[in-house]
Amino acid sequence: MHTTPESAGTERVGAFSDAVVAVIITLMVLELRAPESASLSALGSLWPTAVSYAASYLFIAIVWVNHHHLLRLIRRTTPRLIWVNFARLFAVSLVPFSTAWIARTELAAVPVAFYAGVFVCVNLAYRLFERDVFAQADEPQLCERARRMARRRSAGTLLAFAAATAIALWSPVAGFLLVCTALVLYLRPEAPGSAFRTASTD
Amino acid sequence: MHTTPESAGTERVGAFSDAVVAVIITLMVLELRAPESASLSALGSLWPTAVSYAASYLFIAIVWVNHHHLLRLIRRTTPRLIWVNFARLFAVSLVPFSTAWIARTELAAVPVAFYAGVFVCVNLAYRLFERDVFAQADEPQLCERARRMARRRSAGTLLAFAAATAIALWSPVAGFLLVCTALVLYLRPEAPGSAFRTASTD
Amino acid sequence: MHTTPESAGTERVGAFSDAVVAVIITLMVLELRAPESASLSALGSLWPTAVSYAASYLFIAIVWVNHHHLLRLIRRTTPRLIWVNFARLFAVSLVPFSTAWIARTELAAVPVAFYAGVFVCVNLAYRLFERDVFAQADEPQLCERARRMARRRSAGTLLAFAAATAIALWSPVAGFLLVCTALVLYLRPEAPGSAFRTASTD
Amino acid sequence: MHTTPESAGTERVGAFSDAVVAVIITLMVLELRAPESASLSALGSLWPTAVSYAASYLFIAIVWVNHHHLLRLIRRTTPRLIWVNFARLFAVSLVPFSTAWIARTELAAVPVAFYAGVFVCVNLAYRLFERDVFAQADEPQLCERARRMARRRSAGTLLAFAAATAIALWSPVAGFLLVCTALVLYLRPEAPGSAFRTASTD
Repeated sequence: MHTTPESAGTERVGAFSDAVVAVIITLMVLELRAPESASLSALGSLWPTAVSYAASYLFIAIVWVNHHHLLRLIRRTTPRLIWVNFARLFAVSLVPFSTAWIARTELAAVPVAFYAGVFVCVNLAYRLFERDVFAQADEPQLCERARRMARRRSAGTLLAFAAATAIALWSPVAGFLLVCTALVLYLRPEAPGSAFRTASTD
Repeated sequence: MHTTPESAGTERVGAFSDAVVAVIITLMVLELRAPESASLSALGSLWPTAVSYAASYLFIAIVWVNHHHLLRLIRRTTPRLIWVNFARLFAVSLVPFSTAWIARTELAAVPVAFYAGVFVCVNLAYRLFERDVFAQADEPQLCERARRMARRRSAGTLLAFAAATAIALWSPVAGFLLVCTALVLYLRPEAPGSAFRTASTD
Repeated sequence: MHTTPESAGTERVGAFSDAVVAVIITLMVLELRAPESASLSALGSLWPTAVSYAASYLFIAIVWVNHHHLLRLIRRTTPRLIWVNFARLFAVSLVPFSTAWIARTELAAVPVAFYAGVFVCVNLAYRLFERDVFAQADEPQLCERARRMARRRSAGTLLAFAAATAIALWSPVAGFLLVCTALVLYLRPEAPGSAFRTASTD
Repeated sequence: MHTTPESAGTERVGAFSDAVVAVIITLMVLELRAPESASLSALGSLWPTAVSYAASYLFIAIVWVNHHHLLRLIRRTTPRLIWVNFARLFAVSLVPFSTAWIARTELAAVPVAFYAGVFVCVNLAYRLFERDVFAQADEPQLCERARRMARRRSAGTLLAFAAATAIALWSPVAGFLLVCTALVLYLRPEAPGSAFRTASTD
């Protein structure tokens, strides 16, 4: 490996982000407190916590995978990029808090709206990060079509999360389902995602 | 090491998994809450927590060691492999919760069955991961006999954990002892394990 | 990269520090406990926690960025450097505690003075670390002007934090605002900071 | 860097250990709970927690530094070495629990004896690890005199911790002071320590 000081910087930023995300994704499980009672129904009554933990885990995993692809395109770790990344991690660090809130209140209106709002912030920070990375990447590394598709994709989820924030105030369950749907759509291997992936590993 | 972008990807997936596992294995110890009283008997009354912590620690260590061997065989980090790995980590992340539950209820029936059930899930996710990695590895790297033995071995522990899940509902102590026996058998240096190890480091 | 045993040592010290800082920056968010009530006002009542969490996050991020620049200049990991770094991490590890204290007491006098005092300790440890690293760096790597500016800069924030410690005892809000101002000034991309940055990446 | 698969294994074992130790050293600070009251005396009443946190932090830092030196001598990561390392980490993972216990009981007899006992266990596991690593290292890398001194040194602290365990049952404060003295002696830069260090970096 020919590691220039610059790429060493990128590696360290990546490793630090990974450590922060690893702690965040694991801290959420602390909210899954073992019940005092040994019955199945005691376990069953944890469903709001379990569902919201699973959704947040999935969200953070998606964020990690996307970040993973972007990091490969980084050429130089600029101070700006480092700060945008810290802003992104700050938004992600609010996920365990908002997850705990919707779990405790069993998907109440304001908490679910706040939960979707945190997803909007993570997405906004991610888009800033994406824009800065794309500005560094050259044509052969990332064709115009792939860029457009990646941007459209993150714009799509941004809209879905923003809509979920508003909808949750009227119907929290509908807002939460919209968040989950957007996450599952994000997992589809074909379509924009694969185009981006192909472009980045060519 | 000539680090292609692909192997860099494998390293990052390995490093991220390690960070998550490191946090999980350490969070469990938080359940070992220091007693208010300063007597030996106060320490002694923690035995259900201590025993279940030790068993879970051993289990996660075994999972790490096996994962460690598999990672060496990975040639390309495919999106599928990354997602199977996230599923595996999700299952592992439930270990502190289930450990806390059996500790609090002093090895009650439903909690021990759930505990063994989480081990079944971790094992299933591990087998998926193993299958995908084996599909990438070539003949000289991993001979047919080593593959068969590794598969048989993980099938054996899977069966033991599944049996423990069922048995725990009638006799939680017997179920827990079956889990512990399967873990200790897994540590035996000879037999299938060593064959696999030899094959992977040749 | 030609990794000599020495540079491997530097990398490991850097990676360990990053892991500790990643855990610390994330543990602070545990203090942001989800309210039991689902109302907006319940969220609003968390403002002292939220503000202090944001300030501490920003502080630890700044510490990380500066440390990141210094690590690039290290030639040899001496035992002394390792111990100064452990002292630095010890001071940083007190940040979540002091953050929790100002949050719980809603910015009371003694807690804010203690909070600013912890920042003074982190800064003092950082200056020790900086001095040792600068003593290793050669002229072409780091010109005299850049050194002087970096030193002046950290002396400036040290003074601001020390002043905030004293002021907080009379007016905690003024002390806290002084801390925040020093942090924001630290973020300015131009001036001393950029000079240092330029020198270190030339 | 020419990274053979074997050295890659050593790096991963080192990185995983570091992550576990980083989490453990940071979790201890969670026991330093911010007081509800904003007075100086409320802070002062935390002294047993603060002192025991500082001692445990110092101990884990010493363990890390020694481990850091040993890792450089490892040639091959054997399964046995990995398991001895897991045993070592298990012993270290009990430090936050025992630290919390002596803090809560304000240095009572049984807790301090247990605390020193955990240090004995960490030391025993460390000596096993050291023996296995020394068995791999060649003469030019590590001369007989350095080995003897390193062994004598860890035997000395082992004895001190064992004595502290017994003494604590009669006088917990004397036991705790013996632990602290042994730690501070370990920090002395000259004598056995430096000889070992010189040998390992030659």
